[in-house]
Amino acid sequence: MAESHQPDDCSIQRTLDAIGDRWTLLILRDLFRGVRRFSMIQTDLGIARNLLADRLISLADEGVVKKVPYQDRPPRHEYHLTAKGRALSPALVALMRWGDDYYTDGGAPTELVHDECQTRLELQSWCTSCNSPVDPTHIRSAPGAGRVLSVTETEDV
Amino acid sequence: MAESHQPDDCSIQRTLDAIGDRWTLLILRDLFRGVRRFSMIQTDLGIARNLLADRLISLADEGVVKKVPYQDRPPRHEYHLTAKGRALSPALVALMRWGDDYYTDGGAPTELVHDECQTRLELQSWCTSCNSPVDPTHIRSAPGAGRVLSVTETEDV
Repeated sequence: MAESHQPDDCSIQRTLDAIGDRWTLLILRDLFRGVRRFSMIQTDLGIARNLLADRLISLADEGVVKKVPYQDRPPRHEYHLTAKGRALSPALVALMRWGDDYYTDGGAPTELVHDECQTRLELQSWCTSCNSPVDPTHIRSAPGAGRVLSVTETEDV
Repeated sequence: MAESHQPDDCSIQRTLDAIGDRWTLLILRDLFRGVRRFSMIQTDLGIARNLLADRLISLADEGVVKKVPYQDRPPRHEYHLTAKGRALSPALVALMRWGDDYYTDGGAPTELVHDECQTRLELQSWCTSCNSPVDPTHIRSAPGAGRVLSVTETEDV
């Protein structure tokens, strides 16, 4: 039986504190696609201006996006992903792939492919010691250096 | 410049419709950890009973969790992930890993390891044609079979 974690003793919880909001994830999706200007994101998502402004301020505060000027007169800027923002790519890819698998009848709207051979990519857990992909049944969780409470996991994420 | 997608023409959007809620993602985290009973999830998350009940009903409606009896008198059940639910593992792993990288000072609270060698796992995009991991700079997106609108992506997720 798993015991309770302290609220901040979980990287998923911390991640959701930063980006765990439906609008925020859709804004990130747009930024990855190159939709970077306020009015274009607003049109694409059909989100209210104040909500979009709030989310972009939060993302900038978290260091996930940065404002980059693209015009001086009048001053205009667009929103770019930082390195920290781009590091969310595997999470968005995984969410997209799950939607592809369970919510599309006619196939995936967008495929991610290897540029050299155009093969559809899989997302795999990878062992750098064995230099091979690892089947989910061979994944275990173990307490890391930042563990606060002792917890016994009975099923692995 | 990217054009707008139709609202349902995106697997990330469909995924967020199903599970894109902070409480829902934390409930899924608990289920992966083996915290499966209503009262235990409630205690672990500090979530109100009505909110937890709502989220579990939605997850069952989506086919992500199923109720499994564990006691007859009085009748009691717990919540198990279905195959569709377990397929969210890479997404939760990716969210956890991002939190590990950007929100932990003393190291990851939990490490995911390969059971055979205890090596910390990486999450990699994998090309089944080349039988090798693919660097993010070699990932491209392409319209899939389920594409509704023509969209030009300028940056890849």
